[in-house]
Amino acid sequence: MPLYGGIEAGGTKWVCAVATGRDQILAHAVFPTTTPTETLDQALAFFQRHRDIVAIGIGSFGPLDANPSSPTWGYITTTPKPGWAYTNVGAAIQQALGVPVSFDTDVNAAAFGEHIWGAAQGLDTFTYLTIGTGIGGGVMANGKLIHGLLHPELGHMRIPHDRAADEYAGACPYHGDCLEGLAAGPALRERWGQRGETLPADHPAWALEAHYLALALVNLICTLSPQRIILGGGVMQQTQLWPLLRRKVQELLNGYLQMPALLDEIDSYIVPPALGDRAGVLGAIALAHSG
Amino acid sequence: MPLYGGIEAGGTKWVCAVATGRDQILAHAVFPTTTPTETLDQALAFFQRHRDIVAIGIGSFGPLDANPSSPTWGYITTTPKPGWAYTNVGAAIQQALGVPVSFDTDVNAAAFGEHIWGAAQGLDTFTYLTIGTGIGGGVMANGKLIHGLLHPELGHMRIPHDRAADEYAGACPYHGDCLEGLAAGPALRERWGQRGETLPADHPAWALEAHYLALALVNLICTLSPQRIILGGGVMQQTQLWPLLRRKVQELLNGYLQMPALLDEIDSYIVPPALGDRAGVLGAIALAHSG
Repeated sequence: MPLYGGIEAGGTKWVCAVATGRDQILAHAVFPTTTPTETLDQALAFFQRHRDIVAIGIGSFGPLDANPSSPTWGYITTTPKPGWAYTNVGAAIQQALGVPVSFDTDVNAAAFGEHIWGAAQGLDTFTYLTIGTGIGGGVMANGKLIHGLLHPELGHMRIPHDRAADEYAGACPYHGDCLEGLAAGPALRERWGQRGETLPADHPAWALEAHYLALALVNLICTLSPQRIILGGGVMQQTQLWPLLRRKVQELLNGYLQMPALLDEIDSYIVPPALGDRAGVLGAIALAHSG
Repeated sequence: MPLYGGIEAGGTKWVCAVATGRDQILAHAVFPTTTPTETLDQALAFFQRHRDIVAIGIGSFGPLDANPSSPTWGYITTTPKPGWAYTNVGAAIQQALGVPVSFDTDVNAAAFGEHIWGAAQGLDTFTYLTIGTGIGGGVMANGKLIHGLLHPELGHMRIPHDRAADEYAGACPYHGDCLEGLAAGPALRERWGQRGETLPADHPAWALEAHYLALALVNLICTLSPQRIILGGGVMQQTQLWPLLRRKVQELLNGYLQMPALLDEIDSYIVPPALGDRAGVLGAIALAHSG
């Protein structure tokens, strides 16, 4: 069976793997994201030990250029991460290893992995949203990942900020109280003075978090009309969030859309990723598969 | 050349036309939306005078069922319009006239017309938004109209409501201060005590309107990543809105996405429909064309 390479190129660590499919990971390596040169060299050294791979998929932090007809295809572009703005990742790896490279956002890759092997099998229009240190999302519409002008930046949508209940100004350096600014991990920590993981399950933080995330999900439902919404990331490890969030989505929609998926069947509409922790690197391998 | 039929099935009036293409409308009729039976009979009578049409496209008010594999395909479903809930439109016309029928939302039809003949030619991912008595939108992603779970309901996204500057509670019977509740024609009239068309061009209403619409456009950009946004409807006839709106979108994005379309080229990114008043019925004819 052909061997595929995958890179989950994150802002804090890179995960590289060689695999034939979802359950056949033959080798993998994890290393911290340092300078572009050092990090790329480590990835290349890993794959040069596996000369027989036929293609590589890369799911990267961004913003980035995933347009194959663009001269800067394969670049991480305007990232605020020091040293990484306008870094050639995709074409550099393609040239060094001489195999086809598929290059997309980390979240589009994770969405694609869920489409091929996970919670979105058989669906052609769905959303994968991750809520952790940041908030980002991948979107498939009509069977293909959405790029359009650039790629979705779901974390930066604007939602109503309940200033009466929540004086916290928001953590996003660009937008203040966008979704990510109000609901990602750093906002939880700064608003409540402790890390989210250390807050008790009945702390009011979680009702507010569910409220903000529900507003975002309602906006996704009204714009993308996804057949399912997959929620990953560290914040969603808080199991008490799930029932709160599903109920808030229903309250906010208020019966306007009479679809079973949004009513009795909401537990199978808003779901965790089936690939769990491996969604990132498996998504990259799935991208390599699809070429 | 083959003849196509189109129906713009609106909540206040229906427009029917027979055409070979964008500039060859051979016959058309306009009549008020009364009861389902009477309105459908008028449409059928019109098309029965044109026995040689090969297909019909229908762009209808909704929510509706546009899923060809559903038993209620062609129905207007949960509309609050009295007498019209669960009305069979698409299949009824198909059976009466014996020709293929394409059935979609009025706004998806208008978007499709702009794709074939108007301001979205050559684009595969874009949004058409109409701001009038209500707010609705059609979305094409990866070359096809989005349906997904149901279809987009762009008017019902939630945006930040500036209660300090705007005490008006919102007009939406389901959601109060959703986008439509804050920024459609009825909200303008109720907030300011007069119809939008009668407000002077330098009235503060327009800065507030531009602010709310800009929040919605930012959310569309962050979720759908459209290659262009087309804005139609009566409210957008207020020409002073356009520069305010484009500038507010840039202020809200605050340089996060360094794409020329969102910077120097925004005048050709946020644009009016090329088909103008005829977008609805021409969109329906375009749907018939595409089968």
